[in-house]
Amino acid sequence: MDFGESGLVPAVAQDAETGEVLMLAYVSPEALERTRETGEAHYYSRSRDELWHKGASSGHTQTVEEVRVDCDADALLYVVEQAGGACHTGHRSCFHRTVDGEHVGERVFDPDEVY
Amino acid sequence: MDFGESGLVPAVAQDAETGEVLMLAYVSPEALERTRETGEAHYYSRSRDELWHKGASSGHTQTVEEVRVDCDADALLYVVEQAGGACHTGHRSCFHRTVDGEHVGERVFDPDEVY
Repeated sequence: MDFGESGLVPAVAQDAETGEVLMLAYVSPEALERTRETGEAHYYSRSRDELWHKGASSGHTQTVEEVRVDCDADALLYVVEQAGGACHTGHRSCFHRTVDGEHVGERVFDPDEVY
Repeated sequence: MDFGESGLVPAVAQDAETGEVLMLAYVSPEALERTRETGEAHYYSRSRDELWHKGASSGHTQTVEEVRVDCDADALLYVVEQAGGACHTGHRSCFHRTVDGEHVGERVFDPDEVY
């Protein structure tokens, strides 16, 4: 993998069953290693500046079926089984709006009850 | 959209019909504007440092059905009809290998005949 100057690569999480694109986050070498070791998706939180085990607090973990790498080896695809919803807003996917502001995503939990 | 310090956001292209994740590239404000104006996917090439009309030379354009934005407004999802293959290696998707090097993608054209 080419982690570049930032030391991070973008990773797309895709629902293994439905093919839905769930989220995009960033992965450090350590996050990739932990993902492969544990079989659960790990990322690097740029806002908290730390390793991020997705779902550790919410329970909405991602079991990783396969990790793919793109042709330039500077992006990852996590094919996952998503528990609950991927998005902190309560939606199944973080991509729950069009760029025009139309709501297209499915809400699957109430964030006030989870966080 | 929050284009951040780099002036770019990552964009995932997904096949509208099959749900396959085709590629990840970067989008500038101009690229997003051109995508919305023309209905064909535009990106910003970081290696060539210029606006990139996907498929302009290869013919493998992407007709954009929908542009979605994520919860933090710092990533995009292009839902597209892909002509030919998305990947310059001749594969349908740039994510045609696992991180262990296993070949999982479908080759749909011969790059020597296209480029």
